[in-house]
Amino acid sequence: MLDYFFKPRSVAVIGASNDPKKLGYEVFKNLQKYGGNVYPVNVKEEKVQGVKAYKSVKDIPGDVDLAIIIVPKKFVKQTLIECGEKGVKGVVIITAGFGETGAEGKREERELVEIAHSYGMRIIGPNCVGIMNTHNDLNATFIMDAKKGSIAFISQSGALGAGIVYKTVKEGIGFSKFISIGNMADLDFAELMEYLADTEEDKAMALYIEGLRDGRKFMEVAKRVTKKKPVIVLKAGKSESGARAASSHTGSLAGSYRIYEAAFKQSGVIVAETIDEMLSMARAFTQPLPRGRSVAIMTNAGGPGVLTADEIDKRGLKLANLEEKTIEELRSFLPPMAAVKNPVDMIASARGEDYYRTAKLLLSDANVDMLIAICVVPTFAGMSPTEHAEGVIRAVEEVNNGKPVLALFMAGRVSEPAKELLERYGIPTYERPEDVAAGAHALVRQAENVGLLEK
Amino acid sequence: MLDYFFKPRSVAVIGASNDPKKLGYEVFKNLQKYGGNVYPVNVKEEKVQGVKAYKSVKDIPGDVDLAIIIVPKKFVKQTLIECGEKGVKGVVIITAGFGETGAEGKREERELVEIAHSYGMRIIGPNCVGIMNTHNDLNATFIMDAKKGSIAFISQSGALGAGIVYKTVKEGIGFSKFISIGNMADLDFAELMEYLADTEEDKAMALYIEGLRDGRKFMEVAKRVTKKKPVIVLKAGKSESGARAASSHTGSLAGSYRIYEAAFKQSGVIVAETIDEMLSMARAFTQPLPRGRSVAIMTNAGGPGVLTADEIDKRGLKLANLEEKTIEELRSFLPPMAAVKNPVDMIASARGEDYYRTAKLLLSDANVDMLIAICVVPTFAGMSPTEHAEGVIRAVEEVNNGKPVLALFMAGRVSEPAKELLERYGIPTYERPEDVAAGAHALVRQAENVGLLEK
Repeated sequence: MLDYFFKPRSVAVIGASNDPKKLGYEVFKNLQKYGGNVYPVNVKEEKVQGVKAYKSVKDIPGDVDLAIIIVPKKFVKQTLIECGEKGVKGVVIITAGFGETGAEGKREERELVEIAHSYGMRIIGPNCVGIMNTHNDLNATFIMDAKKGSIAFISQSGALGAGIVYKTVKEGIGFSKFISIGNMADLDFAELMEYLADTEEDKAMALYIEGLRDGRKFMEVAKRVTKKKPVIVLKAGKSESGARAASSHTGSLAGSYRIYEAAFKQSGVIVAETIDEMLSMARAFTQPLPRGRSVAIMTNAGGPGVLTADEIDKRGLKLANLEEKTIEELRSFLPPMAAVKNPVDMIASARGEDYYRTAKLLLSDANVDMLIAICVVPTFAGMSPTEHAEGVIRAVEEVNNGKPVLALFMAGRVSEPAKELLERYGIPTYERPEDVAAGAHALVRQAENVGLLEK
Repeated sequence: MLDYFFKPRSVAVIGASNDPKKLGYEVFKNLQKYGGNVYPVNVKEEKVQGVKAYKSVKDIPGDVDLAIIIVPKKFVKQTLIECGEKGVKGVVIITAGFGETGAEGKREERELVEIAHSYGMRIIGPNCVGIMNTHNDLNATFIMDAKKGSIAFISQSGALGAGIVYKTVKEGIGFSKFISIGNMADLDFAELMEYLADTEEDKAMALYIEGLRDGRKFMEVAKRVTKKKPVIVLKAGKSESGARAASSHTGSLAGSYRIYEAAFKQSGVIVAETIDEMLSMARAFTQPLPRGRSVAIMTNAGGPGVLTADEIDKRGLKLANLEEKTIEELRSFLPPMAAVKNPVDMIASARGEDYYRTAKLLLSDANVDMLIAICVVPTFAGMSPTEHAEGVIRAVEEVNNGKPVLALFMAGRVSEPAKELLERYGIPTYERPEDVAAGAHALVRQAENVGLLEK
């Protein structure tokens, strides 16, 4: 239903500019990679960045599905009316200075929505960074391209959203969509969740929320949506001082966090405590859901195994009691110094073959519902973590019994090729014990939501 | 007292090798950068990596302060005796297969210590990765150089320690020393803490502990040491399953975490929950200690300000109530949309000059004990976060009243030059709200330890 936002056949950038100091320059530049028709609209220029420009959106030959409005505030209303007359379907208003400034701004904002609705148009924004769909190279924002991935990320704070995009690019974490939701004058979290519940490329939704205007609507929609797809929420304003700051920032009521938290849990929303926890949770959903809460950990170093066991425990998951035959078979090929109880510590000498055999045994163990494969800098000569990654993948392919597998590869740059390999295979890779445990925890919570596991 | 380990005039690498597949190859290669004399010892080779080799440590002309032993296990005892006869002072035994393997290994380990002590030598290890001092380019390990910094990091898990070194290199976090403490047959945490308490270049100690053999000794020493220098501990084995795994990994008793935690707190040790929290806390100590618990937050984006306020609150610190005159002055130059309460949201248009003026006012406010300066991708044209960093530094230089300043710069690679600038100036920079809050929290805890603040 909202495909005209994320898969538009044509896009107009109203306020596209030749001046690199203007946001309209960046937005039009970013849209050059998009496959559909992209038209610059500028009242003064003949050409924008070498492309023929139009004085008004109405002058564009052919249909316009999506308009990005980035003109000065005083021209927004007129621009919106012209979009309506043109038959535009979706409008992203980047321009700020509306509801976030006070009562008068709120009134103007409501007027914009009335105008849009009278033409059958929908609005994202105002006061936002824009939207991205990495699966068709649509970047209708003034920030850098996010990495392609499977998480739809909706942020109520434009700057924080942008900061997270920059951060994830650096860390190699991908998004399917990035939606800076701005003041939510029209489209809000609820409607976007409903749309994202039925898309192919979005495996999970990650929401950064400061305050909701209609909490009841959000929770009702969330209750339905979370049966289909995981929704992970980071709610700002947990503390009293944070809540006060959040409410002055967005103009919406932050409300008591405890009420939010209870409502989130009731509606199947998975609550994250930090940005990294939100991302770690959302990234897990390239894996199938588990049929139980028992985790097996395999590692080539004791320390990370212990830290991961601690984090698993903290989140109410448990370490699997391995079957006797698994323990015996592990003992048959692992060195005497190895620990064959869970966590299985294959010790530093473990090669790819050991990872393969151990992963295969653990995945085949009836007491194991999930596997976490840990690899720390293999300090032994001639080893690269890539062989360890390959071992895990081979085991998963052979056993193929639908148990989720997550990886913790802790070796900075040394492990990057291994991590890329695992990610290509759909196995999410983490760098910190608390992150991989958060991923496992989210899988369990979602299995509860869809009824695979009892709560 | 342990300078012969960290500032040796001469080092012998016993087991130095020409074979890149051997750890003795890496250790000798890493030591080539060291300023003191470094001698390879190898029973078979005339030269190692182009340097004249000796059959025995005893053949080396001149004194040897430090020996790194990396020969096969069966030769360790004889090698150690030769070190004693040579008059070596400190020995790092990298070779594994001792106390961690069981009762017989423990017996052999005790024998090594008796031999060493009979010659007046001290041992680090066995079963370790080695030691580093980044302030004199001493890398007596088989892993990559850590980045130079001000944290002395001691790890009971060699592999985890190595993983953390690799991770911190990637993230730009530095260490003054890295000590892989191995089986702690002789030197343990307590003695190393005493040594590190009096060094110039180590501003804080970060300890990764799996289990202590002599808890009472540790706590007694910690009580003294933490009055001089902060000690931050990450203790593995918090959960029952984690504790079981830790005890099988190190052979030492992990013990109940709750007992540890209580003892740590009593002795002034600052407890970290995760690796990143440990590093974030330790990094704060390039700043002075605060005289109170009231934090001012300044930001160019609401979201991160709110998240940081939440994290500050969670750790028992509080947001400062700004003085009326501060609020008035902030209002005089910040745009109408800015929030002039704490957190001060200067909004996205803030330039370096705004950072300077705001930081100066907040640092001069009598109700403010600490400042957190936040900067998210400045999306406005022609801005780079460097000007924001410069603004903060200018304010700190002018006000110069000893209040600690921490920075949260959330923009991935875009903010790296700004972060380097701040770090050079001794202002620790973080990328996540929870990390900067952990840093502030650690400063408060240490101010309590030294009696600057009441508990």
